[in-house]
This record gives sequence, C-alpha cells and structure tokens, in this order.
Amino acid sequence: RYFHFCKLPGRVTGIRLLRFTSVVIIVLLLVAGALTALLPNIKDDKMPNLRREPKPQSQSALDSFTLIMQTYNRTDLLLKLLNHYQAIPHLHKVIVVWNNIGEKIPEEMWNSLGPHPVPVVFKVQTVNRMRNRLQNFPELETKAVLMMDDDTLVSAHDLAFAFSVWQQFPEHIVGFVPRKHISTPSGVYSYGSFELQNPGFGNGDQYSMVLIGAAFFHSGYLQDFQRQPEAVYALIDETQNCDDIAMNFLVAKHTGKPSGVFVKPVDIRNLEKDTNSGYSGMWHRAEHLLQRSYCVNKLVNIYDGMPLKYSNIMISQFGFPNYANHKNKM
Amino acid sequence: RYFHFCKLPGRVTGIRLLRFTSVVIIVLLLVAGALTALLPNIKDDKMPNLRREPKPQSQSALDSFTLIMQTYNRTDLLLKLLNHYQAIPHLHKVIVVWNNIGEKIPEEMWNSLGPHPVPVVFKVQTVNRMRNRLQNFPELETKAVLMMDDDTLVSAHDLAFAFSVWQQFPEHIVGFVPRKHISTPSGVYSYGSFELQNPGFGNGDQYSMVLIGAAFFHSGYLQDFQRQPEAVYALIDETQNCDDIAMNFLVAKHTGKPSGVFVKPVDIRNLEKDTNSGYSGMWHRAEHLLQRSYCVNKLVNIYDGMPLKYSNIMISQFGFPNYANHKNKM
Repeated sequence: RYFHFCKLPGRVTGIRLLRFTSVVIIVLLLVAGALTALLPNIKDDKMPNLRREPKPQSQSALDSFTLIMQTYNRTDLLLKLLNHYQAIPHLHKVIVVWNNIGEKIPEEMWNSLGPHPVPVVFKVQTVNRMRNRLQNFPELETKAVLMMDDDTLVSAHDLAFAFSVWQQFPEHIVGFVPRKHISTPSGVYSYGSFELQNPGFGNGDQYSMVLIGAAFFHSGYLQDFQRQPEAVYALIDETQNCDDIAMNFLVAKHTGKPSGVFVKPVDIRNLEKDTNSGYSGMWHRAEHLLQRSYCVNKLVNIYDGMPLKYSNIMISQFGFPNYANHKNKM
Repeated sequence: RYFHFCKLPGRVTGIRLLRFTSVVIIVLLLVAGALTALLPNIKDDKMPNLRREPKPQSQSALDSFTLIMQTYNRTDLLLKLLNHYQAIPHLHKVIVVWNNIGEKIPEEMWNSLGPHPVPVVFKVQTVNRMRNRLQNFPELETKAVLMMDDDTLVSAHDLAFAFSVWQQFPEHIVGFVPRKHISTPSGVYSYGSFELQNPGFGNGDQYSMVLIGAAFFHSGYLQDFQRQPEAVYALIDETQNCDDIAMNFLVAKHTGKPSGVFVKPVDIRNLEKDTNSGYSGMWHRAEHLLQRSYCVNKLVNIYDGMPLKYSNIMISQFGFPNYANHKNKM
C-alpha cells in the first residue's frame, strides 16, 4: 500500500502534488481513525456499551430486554418457566441455552402450543459448559439482558421493577441475589453471604457481587467476556462454577465501582424440587462453596488484584407493596 | 516514518522530506487537537461538577461533607442541632446561614463551650431570604453538601448511610423527603406527596423531587444555582418558598435524569415544637402548598419545559437494622 506513494519522480509535478496531498489525506484518515478509535474507550470508563451499538436496534430493542436461560436436565421446569416469563413486560426475546447435549430441543411441542407472545430461540450446545450462557449470541438485539437460572422463579412485578432500576444503572449487574467476599488476616479471600461478617465492619451488611442467575446486565458485558484471559475460561470449565463470580470481577474492573446493585425481591422462589428429573443443581455439591472461595482467590491472581468493591445499597420500589414502606417517624 | 517502508527515490532531498514531514505533523496536531477537544464535553454530559474542581481540595475534603444549615428565629434549636450534628462521621465543617437579621450570632457562647470536633462558620446575612442558603460559600471546601432545615433531626446512622449513597450517585440529590408533581388534563401541574396519584400509574408510587431540607448534593450545583434566570430568584423571593423545587429543576435539567434519590430514613424527626421561640415554620402558612404548585408551573414557564422525571427507587441499607430486611422467600 505505501509503495505507491513512495515512487516519487524527482521534479515537482502536478502529479506529485496530487500524491503529496493524497498522502496527507490518507495520513489524516489514519490518524482520525486511530484517535476516534480511542473515543469509545474513553467512554468505556463510564458506560461503554451504552455508546457503541454494534447492531442497528429497533426502539423496542432499546426499551426491552432479552431473557437468557441456560437449561440442563430440567426440561419440565424450563417449559414452566418459559410460560411464566413469556408474559413479562418489556420482554423482547427468549434465548434458551440448551446444555442437554445430544437431546432433542422441545421446539416442536413449544410451537404446537403457540402462538407465544415473544420469539423463543433454542441455542443447541455441543459441550455442557457453565459458561455457555455467557456467549455474545447473534440473536441478542437488546442492550439489556435478563439472565435467569432454570430453577428460579421471580415475580413479574419484581422483574419489571428491576428492569426500570437497570435502565437507571445500566453499567451495573442489577439483581436479586447478593453475595460477598471477605479478606482474612492470612490474605486469603473467602466467599459467602450474610453468614460472613467483615472484620471491623459496623452496623449492617455489605455485598460485593450480585449473582447473574437472577439479574439484569448490559449485553456489552457478554462481548467483554469473550476478551478475558484464557485462565478465566479454564477456571470456569475446571470447576463448572464461578462464571457469575468472573462476571462480577469483569464488571467491577470495568466500572471501578461495585459490580452490582441489589434489588430486594418481593417474591423469588426456587422451583428445583418441582422437577421430575430429580436433578438437583450444582450448588448442592459438597465442594460448591469451597470452589467459589477458590475461584475468588484464583481470579485475584489472574487479574492481578481484587477489583470487587462493597456496596450496602438495597433498592426497593417506592410505595410498593404499600405506602407504609416509605413512612417514617416525622 | 512511512518512507522507510519503501525504496527512497533518488532525488527526494532532505529539505523536501523535512517540509513534507512537518506538514504531516502539523496536520496531525490539528486533527488530534480537534478530536481531543471533544472529550471533555462527553464527560461533561455525565457529571460535570465532579470533574471541574475550582478549589484545591484536601483528601479529607473529598471524603467528607459540609453541613449547611440556615436558621431563622430558632437559635435554641440551632444549638441543639449543632451539638447533634457536629459528631456525624465525615463531617468537614458546618456553615450556619444566619437569617436573624441584626441579631448577634451565638459565636461567643459556642466558642466558650468548645472545643468542638469541626469548625462552625456563621454567615451573617443582610436580608432574610429563603435562598440565602444556596450561595456558593467560599468556606465550602468539600464536593458534598449536606443541607438541613433548622428544625429537622436525622439520625447519625441515616446520615452516614446517605452520604455513602451520595458518593455512589454524586450527580443526584440524595435525601430523605421525596415529593412529586403530577400533570392534570388541563395541562396544569400540581405539587404534592403520597396523597397525589399519577393518573394511569399502576402499582406503587413515584417521586420527582427530593427536598434539600434534608439531603446531600454536589457543591457544584450551588455554583450552577448562581447562573439561573433572574425570574427564578424573583419567584423564590416573592414566595419565600420553592428554592428546593428550583434546585430539583436545576439538577434534573443538568442530568436529564430524575433529580433525586430517595433514601428511606430509619429515624427522622421534626423538632419544631421544641423551640421556645414558638416560631412555626413557613410551611404552616395556609398558602404554602398552593404556592409550591404555583412555583412548579412558574418554573415550567421559566425553563420552557418540565425537566422533572419520575423515580420509584427507594434505597435502604443492606442488612440494617437487621438481616431480615433482605431476607426473601427463596
């Protein structure tokens, strides 16, 4: 490419002038390109994914969200949940991540029972991986992702409110299940919930993660997840766990703020017992929690630091269920 | 730099090379300048006052706040409240806006009862104006302002938590008293609280203002307040009311978001009855509320539109007063 600028004849001719100008112009374009390429990054510090819109999006795609639900060994529950969630306000599409390798998807039966309010796409996977749900699915057209475990039922009201909260804090994971890490004198981190108390932390509790098994987050973070160190993927695959912890690390690193915003759910239920498969989730494994502490420490090594920050903010809906929820002694 | 990619033609002299390169470099600088000039504006759209820091600030000034309390005809309450508030965590300084025109400030007595944890500055006013408290006081060194009415007691715990909330949402008014406007079929706005319901709004309530009589906000907004249309000052002075509504308009215009974040107070009290002056606040005037609806409509005319946006977010402290506050049915 450069050579054709370079073979300049000795004498200054109109041609050379022309070449000269074209060089300048091309250099301009290169520089402009280079510099404008920086702009998104600068915005990235704040809320990158809001800015860059890879795909053209319909208005509805902007005011709505995509439900991503990964399923394994609980097709009966899946169908129950699909029926429940398909009626949520602002739902644009459902993406089912089908981890039942080699098993036929229930699309036929689903369609035979149509019509349905929103399209449901079954994404057949070739390997049963925890992180399959964290792909940047081409069918994903909305900024907002609602990710739900396939055994969790959250009331439509809670989801509608949480979505409105996410729209105000789109760079955060907005969800219903808070968790935290604590550091110990040995410098080793431990993972847990309300049973853990930060040494020297006073009234109240804190959280440093919001689990993505029942949360809204920005689809841009699924793009970012594809650009993580190999060691992160290896850790998640090795444990078949911790993909949600990794996402909290990613978001915290990205924003420099607490990764999550906890919305207090009015009604959230675990339906695991309702499945006929008798399958019980990974989190029943004896090593589950230990693995998660292990993952926190591994991720700190991989990312060369602890990006997670604490929050003690709990959001509820003003005036709901009743006005009493915001009465005070005044 | 480009030339080394290609065989240099024999006749290109150093001079021409120099001229050529310098042109390219200058063009580069121009483009770079033009493009980088855009960056600050992009940030400004988000949170300008966080960026521009007029005064050099000590670390403590960044992690702390200034209490601004305007007082009129309730010096006994003032001293009670000063004693209460001087012990709040993160308090940097207290600025008392002294609206008792011609009356001696209690500085001597205050000092005689010292030492006190933080400095208290009495700002003697020449006219008793509601908006005196909205000056850009030179003594104000912190980003964060806590503004309190002189008859309102908020627990230290509520204040410490609300300050931590403000640090996460510094472009908002973070406070304990939510209010709202509603639009009526006639196009006229009405001001009120939970007794007003938005036509057609479903479950729960909404607010579009957070009163600054018990709230944290960014000191940059006091700078912005000095640059409002004269009609705004005239309206506030004419009514001796509505300075807080004007601030909510200002913030909403500035952010394009809801002006306030409501923190549910655990303990807030009105001490008005405790004053010996027998003075009862402006808000007891029969016309008080009518005036506030009047102000909303006036401000809509002055600003040529309604900037206030609704929020239904209510923030409480996670795990306080007890863990039960975030238990759910899961």
